[in-house]
Amino acid sequence: VALAVRQRGLAKRVIGVVRSPERVGRVEACGVVDEVTADAVAACGGADLVVVATPVDTIARWALEAAQHAAPDALVTDAGSTKAAIIAAVEAGWPSDGDGLAFVGAHPLAGDHRTGPEASQGDLFDGATTILTPTSATPPKALAAARALWEGMGSVVVEMTPDEHDRAVALTSHVPHVAASAVAAVTPEAVLGYTASGWADTTRVAAGSPSLWREILLANSRPVSEGLRRLSQELDAYAAALDRQDGVALETLLEEGRRIREARGRDALGS
Amino acid sequence: VALAVRQRGLAKRVIGVVRSPERVGRVEACGVVDEVTADAVAACGGADLVVVATPVDTIARWALEAAQHAAPDALVTDAGSTKAAIIAAVEAGWPSDGDGLAFVGAHPLAGDHRTGPEASQGDLFDGATTILTPTSATPPKALAAARALWEGMGSVVVEMTPDEHDRAVALTSHVPHVAASAVAAVTPEAVLGYTASGWADTTRVAAGSPSLWREILLANSRPVSEGLRRLSQELDAYAAALDRQDGVALETLLEEGRRIREARGRDALGS
Repeated sequence: VALAVRQRGLAKRVIGVVRSPERVGRVEACGVVDEVTADAVAACGGADLVVVATPVDTIARWALEAAQHAAPDALVTDAGSTKAAIIAAVEAGWPSDGDGLAFVGAHPLAGDHRTGPEASQGDLFDGATTILTPTSATPPKALAAARALWEGMGSVVVEMTPDEHDRAVALTSHVPHVAASAVAAVTPEAVLGYTASGWADTTRVAAGSPSLWREILLANSRPVSEGLRRLSQELDAYAAALDRQDGVALETLLEEGRRIREARGRDALGS
Repeated sequence: VALAVRQRGLAKRVIGVVRSPERVGRVEACGVVDEVTADAVAACGGADLVVVATPVDTIARWALEAAQHAAPDALVTDAGSTKAAIIAAVEAGWPSDGDGLAFVGAHPLAGDHRTGPEASQGDLFDGATTILTPTSATPPKALAAARALWEGMGSVVVEMTPDEHDRAVALTSHVPHVAASAVAAVTPEAVLGYTASGWADTTRVAAGSPSLWREILLANSRPVSEGLRRLSQELDAYAAALDRQDGVALETLLEEGRRIREARGRDALGS
């Protein structure tokens, strides 16, 4: 986000907040921000815009902290993969004395299994969908500013409620992540030498951070759990068709998978 | 295979056999073979080498047909994704009057979801593992010739029994394929616009041909069915951990997926 904002001139000055002073030099060296500090309070002091890009379980806390120090009409937004729990916690603790100060939840549908400042890509959001989740408490002006920010980074912005968001991404992101991880986990190490591009593609996202994903899954547990049970039933349908050597049933199952895969391929950017 | 053999000068003349005369011109235009015909018997006449690259359910029939017409000491090999049923059928019908005439089962662990002669890649096997599945009936000379062929196309050749092969690829290829297809199938079309690279990677192989994969799965039904039930249990373990909000169990499951994914990443070519 910092790199995209700088490259597109969306802010005069971008301050990056790191978790510990030891990381300051490493982030400075990447040139993704104008200034780096481990002092979040100082960094937020008088800021017009704060983007909270921490793991989902700490976003609400940092958003509320930022609200105490940012400019009175600042926009606070995030990049978390879940929304309902974050929005509820933020709205429960939001200060009532701001002059338009507002939080607008955001989830850019773009990412990479690589982490750290060195992996920054200024065009990561270019053409990607970003979901904003305003509520009845969101001032129209703040929503417009959030839209301008994410569109300014090249995103296509859509709006939905926090609950709608969480149900949708359970199926488009969280369940596929668990599936990738489970496929990897059930592959005995002794046969890893006999994997090819199919295994590599199917398991790629399993390289993501377990602690980050633990919190994402916990924050969206019911929709994900329901999606996993539906996926499990689908696998059992394959196994049952195999047990009775039912080629017609197998082909019907495979055709449905291909149809949905190709329907996405036609409409969406990327492959 | 034809393009790789030509580019590396592994045969003096490569004849491509197509299913119907209407396809002759299309394959000729791609320049992957020296000659194209729909007459398999004529193409095999006196051939020193026949590579049967049809769907798995027809490989044995074509290998036996080729054996009737190829040179008396010809090598017949294949590129099928399953081995035990093919080898059993080939050995049951193999002519006893050949002068070294032999079939050596092969499975190059390389491929692409794209199909047709236009998608040919001469370097597809470069650095890929190819599994050969000789049996007690395989003449050492034929095995050496098969090894020279697949190594000549750039593969790293390993040998195992047909049953060992089928059990290994059930877990490294067939189960992941079904998982990819199932993840795609359980994604409602209404939320396809909210997919990103994670969904795209995890479901990529679901674009493969349903009729081709139906036959692969049927020919390896027991190992695949067992693998799918194991995968289904793994997904149920995630769902149960989510239902009880058990972050420790979730992280342990995610860590195991990452560990196996990364173990492969370190040792194998590609990503």
